[in-house]
This record gives sequence, C-alpha cells and structure tokens, in this order.
Amino acid sequence: KYDGILGVLGGLEILRTMNDLGIKTKHPIVVTNFTNEEGTRYAPAMLSSGVFAGIHTQDWAYARTDAEGKTFGDELQRIGWKGDEEVGARKMHAFFELHIEQGAILDRQGIGIGVVEGIVGIMRWNVTVDGVTNHAGTTPMDRRSDAMVAAARFVDLVHRTAREAPGRQVATVGRLTAEPGVPNVIPGRVTLTLEIRDLSMDGIERLYEAIRERSESIAEESRTAFSFDRFYTSRAAPTDERIQARGASAAAGLGLSARAMPSGAGHDAQSIALLAPVGMIFVPSIGGISHAPEEHTAPGDVTNGANVLLHTVLAIDETGL
Amino acid sequence: KYDGILGVLGGLEILRTMNDLGIKTKHPIVVTNFTNEEGTRYAPAMLSSGVFAGIHTQDWAYARTDAEGKTFGDELQRIGWKGDEEVGARKMHAFFELHIEQGAILDRQGIGIGVVEGIVGIMRWNVTVDGVTNHAGTTPMDRRSDAMVAAARFVDLVHRTAREAPGRQVATVGRLTAEPGVPNVIPGRVTLTLEIRDLSMDGIERLYEAIRERSESIAEESRTAFSFDRFYTSRAAPTDERIQARGASAAAGLGLSARAMPSGAGHDAQSIALLAPVGMIFVPSIGGISHAPEEHTAPGDVTNGANVLLHTVLAIDETGL
Repeated sequence: KYDGILGVLGGLEILRTMNDLGIKTKHPIVVTNFTNEEGTRYAPAMLSSGVFAGIHTQDWAYARTDAEGKTFGDELQRIGWKGDEEVGARKMHAFFELHIEQGAILDRQGIGIGVVEGIVGIMRWNVTVDGVTNHAGTTPMDRRSDAMVAAARFVDLVHRTAREAPGRQVATVGRLTAEPGVPNVIPGRVTLTLEIRDLSMDGIERLYEAIRERSESIAEESRTAFSFDRFYTSRAAPTDERIQARGASAAAGLGLSARAMPSGAGHDAQSIALLAPVGMIFVPSIGGISHAPEEHTAPGDVTNGANVLLHTVLAIDETGL
Repeated sequence: KYDGILGVLGGLEILRTMNDLGIKTKHPIVVTNFTNEEGTRYAPAMLSSGVFAGIHTQDWAYARTDAEGKTFGDELQRIGWKGDEEVGARKMHAFFELHIEQGAILDRQGIGIGVVEGIVGIMRWNVTVDGVTNHAGTTPMDRRSDAMVAAARFVDLVHRTAREAPGRQVATVGRLTAEPGVPNVIPGRVTLTLEIRDLSMDGIERLYEAIRERSESIAEESRTAFSFDRFYTSRAAPTDERIQARGASAAAGLGLSARAMPSGAGHDAQSIALLAPVGMIFVPSIGGISHAPEEHTAPGDVTNGANVLLHTVLAIDETGL
C-alpha cells in the first residue's frame, strides 16, 4: 500500500521505544545521519544530504578537500564509511528531523515544541563600497569620499530595513574589511557581507531590492559607489503541511504547548525536501545559544521532542500522509 | 648678537642661491635632514627629530628593530650615518621647513603658498563594541545585540559630530574588525580605531567627549557596550607667529597668493618646536594626493616655495625674530 520508507534523522530513541513496546510499523523505518552537515571540515554544509538529494554529484562531493588537502572520498574510505549502496536507491514516503531550535523563541515564550513551517532560504552578497583613499589629517571632513562612513550607513540601513518590514525576515552584516585599514588613512574601499533569510525567496528578493535602492542615496550623499555580487543562494524549503498538522496533534495529545515557526538555520531536511515530504520538530535552546560550549537543552525538553517525533511518525505510519 | 643657528630642513637650494649671489648671513645656517621621518621601517615616525628634541633617548631609538630584527643603531653604523656629535650640542635661533601640503586646499583654491599655523595634535583610540554573538538565521531582528550595527552607528556619529562642529578638526575611523567575522553570525564584538586631529588639544578632548557621550545612546538602543582605550597622543605644535608673519610678507613681496592653514600631517618641525621657534611653508599638492605614485607638485610651485623660504630665512637672519 505504501511506496517507501519513513526516514528519521537521529531517531534512535524512537526505534528503541518501538522495540521495547513491541510495535510493528507498516513502513520500514530508517534512521539516518548525514555526514558533514555543518560543512566545517568540507564545504559546503549539508554535503551528504545534498548528494542524496541530487544537488551535488557523488564524484564532486568525494573530490572536496579539507585544509590539509585530504579529500572527502579518501577520508570516508579510510574510516570505513564510504559504503557501496547506490545513491537514491530507496524511495521515501516521508522524512522527519528533530532538532534544537538554535534560537530563543521557544525558550523565551516558555513553549515546549516548535512545529517547523519551513527552512528559510538564504542569499549572501559581497558588497563593495568604493570611495577615495586619503590622508586622515589633511582631508577636510566635507571633502571626503569615505568608504567606511558609507559602509556604516549601509549597515544601519540593512538593519532598519529588515526590522521595519512586516514579516520574520532577517538581514545581517557579519564581516567588514576596510582598505588600507590603518588608523590614519580614510578608507578608499570597504567590502562587507550581506545575508538575508526568509521563508519566501520572493521576500528575500524584495528586501534586497529595497536595500539596494536605498543604498543609492547613501552613495550620492557620501560620494561613493556600491556594487553587489551575490555569491550564495540556498533555496527555502517549506515543510509538508500534513506532517506539520500531525506534529501539532502529537504535541497536543501529549499535553505540550506548541507553536508554528520557521527554521532560521539550515538542516539536512531541506535537502531531502527536494525528494520527499519533510517535517521538523524543534525543542527549546536555553538562551537561544548554539554552536557554542554553552549550548544546552533541558533533558525534559529532549524527552518531549522525542515523544512528539515518535507519535508523529506512528500517526503517519498508520494512515499515510 | 644672535644666539644660534638657523636650521632649514631640505634647504639645499636656498644655500646654493645664497652662494651664487655671494650672500653672507649673520647666523650660521644648517641644512638638516632627519633620518626616518616616516617611521615606515622603524616606528615611531619622526624618530630622529624626536631624539634631537629629547622626546626619545638616543639609546632607545638605536634599539628600535625593523621587521628583520635589525636595529636602527646598527643600520646607521653600517651605512656610515651614525656620527659622533652630541645630541643638542648646537643652539637654534629658529627652524624652517618647506613641505608639500599633502591636502587639496591650496590646489583647489588656486593659492600658491600656505603659511602653516601649526601642526595638529593627534589622539587615537581603540574602541571596542561588545554585543552578543548569535546565529544570523535564528535570532529575530528585534532580539539582537549586534555589535556591527552599533559600530556602524558609531562611525556615522564620529563623522557627523566632527563635521558639524565649528572648526577644522577631523575625525576618522580607519580600521574596523568584527568577530567572529563570518557572513552567517551576528558579530558579538567589533573593534575599531578612532583618530581625532586638531590644532588645539582641548579641541580634540572636547570632540572626543561629545562623541563618547553620544555613543551612550547608541549603546542603550542597540543593547551593546562601548569602551575606549587611548593608545597614541601626538601634541599639537603651534608655529611661531613672528615666523608666520615673515612667511606671509615674503610671499606678498614675491607677488604670490598665500593663506594661513594648519598642517594635518605630522612633520619633523613639530619635534623641533619643543626646542626653538619653528615655521613651515606649504606648496600645493595636485589633487591633494601624497604617499602615492600620483603625488605631484608643479615645478613652478616648488620654485615659489623655495623663494618664500629663502626670503623668510634672510629676513629673520637680518633682524632676528
């Protein structure tokens, strides 16, 4: 009756619970763990799920090198993880991922479960601001083409534009470099990164256009020029509404508070969304901290998340989507 | 009758002219050229005139090392420039320096001669902006403590405050570094340099206090904290008003346009100002460019500058200050 497996990322505990309780599912359940999700040693992030979803070819992925020049393929071989199953050999009915929120929304609002509406899309640009390098002592304030001042006004513009627009989009300038970058020279060039994330790719484009358009008056006022070079795009990945509804029901059935929310971070589920319906469950991150030694989720919240995942998987196993 | 020499930095041509015309001066005239004025190989700038003026000891200066670890003293010995005359052995009645403007004021206004009112003082601070490092995808715009946004508002504040205050002070942010400095993380810390220059040290202090005070509302609004660490001070050095007057008379006598102006850059004359009355003459820099291959002063302007220097020195030689 059903045409595939149920994939569960990190679902070891729910399999143990099913085994403990003697539960037999209609679908095969496969617990997955995709190598190199962070992309720290081998860029890009989500490398293996990207191969699985056909975003990258297997050969291309194997040829990625780390800082020491070792390839991803050779290192997988060396540790015995290379395997020989053909990519895409198994059909998937649905895919589930449980994750910490990595933000502070659930923690701040005292809500136990986040039902993820989708993984936001991301675009990144290198922005170059060109002014005129000049002597910081001999160039009067009103005769400067100061790329640093123009870049500073741009950073403020980015923040205000993203904050004032309706919606949950975010925009960030994370890196900024001034040339020549010494205390006594007016910078002639500043390069900076602009990142925008939203559940809607159109929303990203609209915010970018608003920022780019408003940067023109900064350029004019400061006698500088802005140029934009987009270097990264990650498509937004909505989760399946039927899985969202099952997740919300499972939380309600367990007496847990829950809310719908976007995922601002990238996850393997967003690769798999190209192949199959996906769903994600979030549990609170204390203080919203992640990727840091202080990252912590209360054990009770971890248990709640695993229970919601278990009941969501069982509900879909029972009736299909 | 007179108690010392007339020191002339780079005045070889005026000595030749005096010799050609058989002019005998009442004061000994010494042409000087201080080693390492730029401070490029051996920090700090104006190292030798600083020793001459007692700002640094001779031993301290000799112990300065370059990027290869070679000391200033050993290298002077090697090229035969170390000499053995005691520092400060000669008394100076007045000191003169001819220089290009290194700014665009004379060039833009079509004025031939700048009579320097003084060399501006300089103070430099490292400014640290502390916010909270966080995930650029999962932290909503209104929940950020973004050190980059706060630093950007500070850069704009510095520019506007210096520009709107009456006077000719300048303020510059030349370097800015964000941590961790990657596109997808909200910077938790930004460090930047603030430099202020003015003919009046009180003026520098007043501008700094205005900037520091206004930064408090940026900190409050953006939930960040600013701290300031002054790491460099160069005292302002006014030139002698009697020498200024002689310079202006010399220019007028030669039919040249002239204006009073500050020097925004540092010069050896500012060290010597601690020992003796000093005066400086500026000639136009085309486009205000200096320290670059495009630096250029028209030969006619160089001749005019040398003639003003000659007549200023002769006038003071004749009558004393």
